[in-house]
Amino acid sequence: MKLLIVGSVAFDAIETPFGKTDKIVGGAATYIAITSSLLNVPCGVVSVIGDDFGNENIDIFRKRNINIEGLEIVEGGKSFFWSGKYHNDLNTRDTLVTEVNVLENFDPKVPDSMQDADILLLGNLHPLVQLSVLEKMHQRPKLVILDTMNFWMDTAMEDLKKMIAKTDVISINDEEARQLSGEYSLVKAAKMIHEMGPKFVIIKKGEHGAILFHDGKVFAVPALPLEEVFDPTGAGDTFAGGFAAYIAKKGDFEFETMKAAVIVGSALASYTVEKFGTERLVELSEEDIVHRIGEFRNLTAFEVMVD
Amino acid sequence: MKLLIVGSVAFDAIETPFGKTDKIVGGAATYIAITSSLLNVPCGVVSVIGDDFGNENIDIFRKRNINIEGLEIVEGGKSFFWSGKYHNDLNTRDTLVTEVNVLENFDPKVPDSMQDADILLLGNLHPLVQLSVLEKMHQRPKLVILDTMNFWMDTAMEDLKKMIAKTDVISINDEEARQLSGEYSLVKAAKMIHEMGPKFVIIKKGEHGAILFHDGKVFAVPALPLEEVFDPTGAGDTFAGGFAAYIAKKGDFEFETMKAAVIVGSALASYTVEKFGTERLVELSEEDIVHRIGEFRNLTAFEVMVD
Repeated sequence: MKLLIVGSVAFDAIETPFGKTDKIVGGAATYIAITSSLLNVPCGVVSVIGDDFGNENIDIFRKRNINIEGLEIVEGGKSFFWSGKYHNDLNTRDTLVTEVNVLENFDPKVPDSMQDADILLLGNLHPLVQLSVLEKMHQRPKLVILDTMNFWMDTAMEDLKKMIAKTDVISINDEEARQLSGEYSLVKAAKMIHEMGPKFVIIKKGEHGAILFHDGKVFAVPALPLEEVFDPTGAGDTFAGGFAAYIAKKGDFEFETMKAAVIVGSALASYTVEKFGTERLVELSEEDIVHRIGEFRNLTAFEVMVD
Repeated sequence: MKLLIVGSVAFDAIETPFGKTDKIVGGAATYIAITSSLLNVPCGVVSVIGDDFGNENIDIFRKRNINIEGLEIVEGGKSFFWSGKYHNDLNTRDTLVTEVNVLENFDPKVPDSMQDADILLLGNLHPLVQLSVLEKMHQRPKLVILDTMNFWMDTAMEDLKKMIAKTDVISINDEEARQLSGEYSLVKAAKMIHEMGPKFVIIKKGEHGAILFHDGKVFAVPALPLEEVFDPTGAGDTFAGGFAAYIAKKGDFEFETMKAAVIVGSALASYTVEKFGTERLVELSEEDIVHRIGEFRNLTAFEVMVD
């Protein structure tokens, strides 16, 4: 299956207890597209950058055969830039700079070559922008996956609810699930969000893993316990990318496939946090991915003798 | 194998958002012993109560064939009493009353009939009391399991370290593991605690499940997502009881057995929180236990197609 990715392509500057970077390539769509290419899934990116982004950075997509016909370059514009500093626990961070730049007036264009995408992954953007992508598709993709965050719940809840109503799979964190539903219990929150539209609800819990809810069924995966989280930036996007790409590869939307997709997303995200930005992700081999999936199996498999 | 349980037998008065109880039977050793009896593991309790505890409450142990030769009854004494109120999230609570009473001068006695215990489970008590039990055993049990808490780290760290040095399996929560080791990363914390003595380190994460570390290997189990946690009191003790009793039943100390034991402990603990105190636990059938273990299998089992 073919995957259409909509999201930011941007610059980040990151500081963690282990060091800091200058401007490096980031953005949700970047992580997602690299992840998809690692799984050999045909994909394309719809996004916008300024001409400061640089040809050598666009090559990251080109050399991976990622369709960038939908990657608009604004002459004289500047790319989205985010800078943040993580605290010692690496679970919390301060945003130092957010320059929205060309993303401010982003009017996504879906090229003809991507109109036949089977899966649409909508990265974290204004819900009206996400909705407009769906409207621009000649036919609804078979699966619509939505990533969003509390910022849109605070500032554009009604638009967000319209987008959620058209979503098959929503991916949010535990606090966002609570905010969206008004329920503290994640089981109740997931039920409530089901009723808003999505048949599948993924609740991400960072270092505690993720939970997938569907039709009264539930699947949970712990995060791989890591000695050191070096830089959490992009972990959530890598997760979403691995999730969507695995489904595209498998080619069906069964619950068993979704479960495996959560594992693949978790496995890839556990690599992303080992180095700054996309540094670890881009160097991964297929063997690395298979190895890490095996580690998740060892992490969770058990046999109870019951008599 | 035979299990010796040392810990409190007490009264609790509990308030949650769902209601409140008068004085009901509680205490770590109570939860652990009931759990062991549910798994048909021969066990005995070493503890102390006042004569206010009442014969009908002692019957809880007698009718389950739990050896109470080590349950001292202090004439004219009052049993340990704890009263607490849980907040709306049920993850945090305020202690309203702690009356140590007869537990203040607890001098544990190990009856001859329990000297041949294979497994010793030391519930949360002063580390010097825990150490004294070990000294009173004619021969060291094959496996020593230690439950403790931050209170002893704050007030008796040196004694606690002596106890930990003689421990095979330690069970603590994530914050306690961080405090004990001085490491934020749980992987590093577990390594540090390994070096203090225990070959097996269990880190409990409440609603996020538990992690077992052993000799560079790791096993993680998510908690069963529950619609409603009614009363978390005794969940940790039930976990420890299910863990120890499963090992006693299985009869070996292999990592695979420890993994399964973590699942059994988690399954039983997930029942305990469904009602006040021991209310849910005492009504469980073997079928219930098998059913919940199956739910844990469904919760975590997956099959990734890797090509």
